[in-house]
Amino acid sequence: MSERIVGYTRYVDLIAPLAAGKEVFSTGMTHEVERCRKAIEFAAKGSVVSVVSSGDAGIYGMAGLILELVNNEGIDGIKVEVIPGIPAFVSAAAILGAPLMHDFASISLSDLLTDWRKIEERVEAAAKADFVIVFYNPKSSKRVEGLKKAMDIVGRYRGKDAPLGIVRNATREGEEAVITTVGEFDRYYGSVDMLTIIVIGNSSSYAAGGRIITPRGYNI
Amino acid sequence: MSERIVGYTRYVDLIAPLAAGKEVFSTGMTHEVERCRKAIEFAAKGSVVSVVSSGDAGIYGMAGLILELVNNEGIDGIKVEVIPGIPAFVSAAAILGAPLMHDFASISLSDLLTDWRKIEERVEAAAKADFVIVFYNPKSSKRVEGLKKAMDIVGRYRGKDAPLGIVRNATREGEEAVITTVGEFDRYYGSVDMLTIIVIGNSSSYAAGGRIITPRGYNI
Repeated sequence: MSERIVGYTRYVDLIAPLAAGKEVFSTGMTHEVERCRKAIEFAAKGSVVSVVSSGDAGIYGMAGLILELVNNEGIDGIKVEVIPGIPAFVSAAAILGAPLMHDFASISLSDLLTDWRKIEERVEAAAKADFVIVFYNPKSSKRVEGLKKAMDIVGRYRGKDAPLGIVRNATREGEEAVITTVGEFDRYYGSVDMLTIIVIGNSSSYAAGGRIITPRGYNI
Repeated sequence: MSERIVGYTRYVDLIAPLAAGKEVFSTGMTHEVERCRKAIEFAAKGSVVSVVSSGDAGIYGMAGLILELVNNEGIDGIKVEVIPGIPAFVSAAAILGAPLMHDFASISLSDLLTDWRKIEERVEAAAKADFVIVFYNPKSSKRVEGLKKAMDIVGRYRGKDAPLGIVRNATREGEEAVITTVGEFDRYYGSVDMLTIIVIGNSSSYAAGGRIITPRGYNI
């Protein structure tokens, strides 16, 4: 049973009933390293600490940072357990139907920690090789141009009618989902933010009955 | 509450306590279409039916086939809900540490339903663009050569020391996990089967403390 909870303020608020009666350390966005150091400091003192991520902690979450810090700083005697969760893109896909039924690639469009050229190269590789494509962190208030560039690349390989799903706050309060196409995406550009997941079908995907379906290849 | 359960025999067995007292229809592998048709037939008669997949139903699972059949056959009045789960590769990643902390691509190596050339093209694109790579269905008793070819492609882009994780029966009875490298993978070739997930790090991934860590890029 956890004695202390560490996490991004918004995510700790989401689990308030579970955190009741425990000591909570929460900070805002971009304070990830500070939070993880605090969690390790608590654990080194013998506490059972839970670090909260949304979705799955191992996908653009806190699991890696904790393991990096424990390893880099040669801290002994701390046992780290990574508990898997339902990733945000998997929740988003379920809301959209079944877009991930064939090979897929997940790309974060945030260039805070990654060189933009590497991001573009991955978008191009995924589009060209006909992966279903998932965009994490597609756009923030300060970072608005990357998504445009990424969609231009996608548009060179994927037809205008290829289905595209936009999901905001998947399985959370304020959940919103739209199914549109690569060609019509511009109409929704303004509604995309950091809490949005974008899923773009492969060349066989189609929309039907308000769902995106990517055929697995069964002869039916 | 479900009245009927439909699924692959092995997976229905795994949820035996939940299926108790319900009518169960289960068949073996390759009978996916038959099972989904049966589920739709039950639903059309007014039953609440649960179709069981392992991991997440939307990732190489049954969600897409159900939606395809309902759409193709113009069946009205059936409500299909896709319930997201923890995908097998996410469970496998948690056991291995935090290999999925940066952009990743998932590829099924089964050429039963997909042209082998398309699979090779995706492996090459993912390796070249430095995605963390996940292989589903890497090898079966009848299909042993594909994984060799795929690893040859990976070896052209990823160093011999790149960490590689092999997980069998993730979070199930008989769970086994090995952390090795791209260069040493051949030693484990014989142990890989259809229940195995393979995760290959990107060019920054490393193994430490019995875990695979892919840095997110924080300056620590």
